[in-house]
Amino acid sequence: MNDKVEDSLNRKVAITRREHFNAAHRLHNPDWTEEKNKKVFGKCNNPNYHGHNYELEVKVIGYVQPETGYVIDTKILSDVIKDQITGRFDHKNLNLDVAEFKNLNPTAENIAMVTYDILREHLDQKLELKIKLYETPRNYVEFPL
Amino acid sequence: MNDKVEDSLNRKVAITRREHFNAAHRLHNPDWTEEKNKKVFGKCNNPNYHGHNYELEVKVIGYVQPETGYVIDTKILSDVIKDQITGRFDHKNLNLDVAEFKNLNPTAENIAMVTYDILREHLDQKLELKIKLYETPRNYVEFPL
Amino acid sequence: MNDKVEDSLNRKVAITRREHFNAAHRLHNPDWTEEKNKKVFGKCNNPNYHGHNYELEVKVIGYVQPETGYVIDTKILSDVIKDQITGRFDHKNLNLDVAEFKNLNPTAENIAMVTYDILREHLDQKLELKIKLYETPRNYVEFPL
Amino acid sequence: MNDKVEDSLNRKVAITRREHFNAAHRLHNPDWTEEKNKKVFGKCNNPNYHGHNYELEVKVIGYVQPETGYVIDTKILSDVIKDQITGRFDHKNLNLDVAEFKNLNPTAENIAMVTYDILREHLDQKLELKIKLYETPRNYVEFPL
Amino acid sequence: MNDKVEDSLNRKVAITRREHFNAAHRLHNPDWTEEKNKKVFGKCNNPNYHGHNYELEVKVIGYVQPETGYVIDTKILSDVIKDQITGRFDHKNLNLDVAEFKNLNPTAENIAMVTYDILREHLDQKLELKIKLYETPRNYVEFPL
Amino acid sequence: MNDKVEDSLNRKVAITRREHFNAAHRLHNPDWTEEKNKKVFGKCNNPNYHGHNYELEVKVIGYVQPETGYVIDTKILSDVIKDQITGRFDHKNLNLDVAEFKNLNPTAENIAMVTYDILREHLDQKLELKIKLYETPRNYVEFPL
Repeated sequence: MNDKVEDSLNRKVAITRREHFNAAHRLHNPDWTEEKNKKVFGKCNNPNYHGHNYELEVKVIGYVQPETGYVIDTKILSDVIKDQITGRFDHKNLNLDVAEFKNLNPTAENIAMVTYDILREHLDQKLELKIKLYETPRNYVEFPL
Repeated sequence: MNDKVEDSLNRKVAITRREHFNAAHRLHNPDWTEEKNKKVFGKCNNPNYHGHNYELEVKVIGYVQPETGYVIDTKILSDVIKDQITGRFDHKNLNLDVAEFKNLNPTAENIAMVTYDILREHLDQKLELKIKLYETPRNYVEFPL
Repeated sequence: MNDKVEDSLNRKVAITRREHFNAAHRLHNPDWTEEKNKKVFGKCNNPNYHGHNYELEVKVIGYVQPETGYVIDTKILSDVIKDQITGRFDHKNLNLDVAEFKNLNPTAENIAMVTYDILREHLDQKLELKIKLYETPRNYVEFPL
Repeated sequence: MNDKVEDSLNRKVAITRREHFNAAHRLHNPDWTEEKNKKVFGKCNNPNYHGHNYELEVKVIGYVQPETGYVIDTKILSDVIKDQITGRFDHKNLNLDVAEFKNLNPTAENIAMVTYDILREHLDQKLELKIKLYETPRNYVEFPL
Repeated sequence: MNDKVEDSLNRKVAITRREHFNAAHRLHNPDWTEEKNKKVFGKCNNPNYHGHNYELEVKVIGYVQPETGYVIDTKILSDVIKDQITGRFDHKNLNLDVAEFKNLNPTAENIAMVTYDILREHLDQKLELKIKLYETPRNYVEFPL
Repeated sequence: MNDKVEDSLNRKVAITRREHFNAAHRLHNPDWTEEKNKKVFGKCNNPNYHGHNYELEVKVIGYVQPETGYVIDTKILSDVIKDQITGRFDHKNLNLDVAEFKNLNPTAENIAMVTYDILREHLDQKLELKIKLYETPRNYVEFPL
């Protein structure tokens, strides 16, 4: 272990892995009239659903391990994301097929928070976690800040 | 009109406009059993639909008009695409909401051919037309060749 | 409203919308000699202007509204950006056609700060606002930090 | 030289190099009234110019040389493009600063044809040449076909 | 089968799948002196190798099957590419670890031709095949034309 | 100097420049057995190396200079990055050709920290510095946070 490696014990680095999934969804509030749903959610309220190619970025922040030079092995991170998120959301209807959205509107904001809550339980608590979710190449959300 | 412009009367140029739409779909052949549909189409056969951010490229080939330096005004081309295709497909369920796919499986190949057939009727016959459709950043189709 | 939704009342999420505009500009300090302008700004000082396809990202940070699952409706955000910024900057000469740059050098840094100042007045004060501006795919600025 | 290499003597391959330049321009036909120019070219007719980050792709087609495995060294191709095109167009006003557009409307179609004519003279006649020019990420032209 | 589907029996469509691999390589001609190798291949001749994230696009052209709406199932195409190409090239040194380049310079041109020759044997002869290989985002080759 | 410019004296802006380099590397810990190296680093441990097209983003944070409207001239920033980093890493084997990785595993995390340490010495201490390094389009690291 040289000086540079030792130094890294006190240096936090972020590593991000990008994965993707394709899903259908519909924005709708069951407490509202159809009229109000249509007014607020517009074409996103289409009762027959529409869909997106979601791009999901998962950022993990921690100290670099001197033996490996890794914060986390991206292969392990990628496997956790596939097992817990993309394997469950990909080629699904978020409203109908994914339990977390049975009573929660699948907006990009809510998908990001649900993703965070799920992944948080499957990563070492010493690692910080941040989610970035692209709904389209021109719209994305981030949580937490 | 200088030599270069006059020259362009004999030179064919292609101009391409890219537009996008977000839609849900499901791949399914009603003449087959559920078992066979599942075997052939896999997760694309999900009865509750999934979806994509489609990117549509429309290429128009013709001679450059010397007065304008245009093959076709991309504003006009963009308006035709929006009126005839993206305005009808965007935020829709292709299987349920779009007449052309009532009896036609909405694969990328079929969406490209349907798009071509529709746009062909709305463009000057002197212009050649080609369609490129991205279903995801890693899968795309082209028609005609 | 389920637990997850209620929880979101205390969770800040960022949502970003990307828009674009095409503009000409020239970098120049009228208090300097032509020689010094040429030395400092190089080819960006060309008196006949040059131009860019600017990509503008507007990030809005706030609490998710439980009725909608939105921080802000991106359609509303997109309309504000078009009304206040891209509708005024697109296909313009920033130095000659846009009042804010009559006496202010239109560097990416200054365009970002001007954009922030304009949009800040048109968004709810409870929402934080951040600007990211790409001058080229290889140069971008961010304000505020 | 093994069989595979020898085989390549009869196989044509295309190699493409992408370069970029930033320029201002204005679409205008001096034979027309201001009113007609404004009607046809819209906001592209702004007398103070606007601009773009152009992306230029130059494709060269030929036989692979068995000694090198190259159709053409991309370093040499890149140098020719920089000397003849991007070095002359970058950070320029195409209408005012580039001789070829003094009497030719700098549409994407015309820029592509001018680029072809210039590069054609600087490349071995045994190599075929094709130009693709992106004016924006959503508009591009190709010449020849 | 409706008219549109039947029609597709006579219509050729191209479908493209993009995959990637990361590899090291070195350009070198063993019949030349070190001096000549250095002069021709420049920094690509580094004896310790350098590397790239290659992006490989495999285009398959054929008639759309009316039962499926597919030219070829992209899942099947993706599996063939992984089995035959990316599974053998990824995280490898092309010069040392891949048999096809033991006596063949691993230029982008040669990698594309080798990829074509391998995949050609694993696809139905009724389907046409074309390869596009990005060595960097700014350099790519195509074979056959 | 107008009010807006004066105002900028108290406003911090970040400006980012993206550069690239292509390099070979191998992940390996000399204190471990070959077996353990293979188990931990998998295919990244290939003794013959593999490689990447690295994309390096260097962010500089500081006050905008009222005379120029710049935090830093991106031409100057680009030259420093080329002199100190990409000119030394491009087309190299990081393990064998770059002194800093003789005893340090060239993971993305370590490359980012080394890049930071080198550039920190060549930039005015009044400017903050942050590094983002893409190893592939789907994996990137950031340092410092």
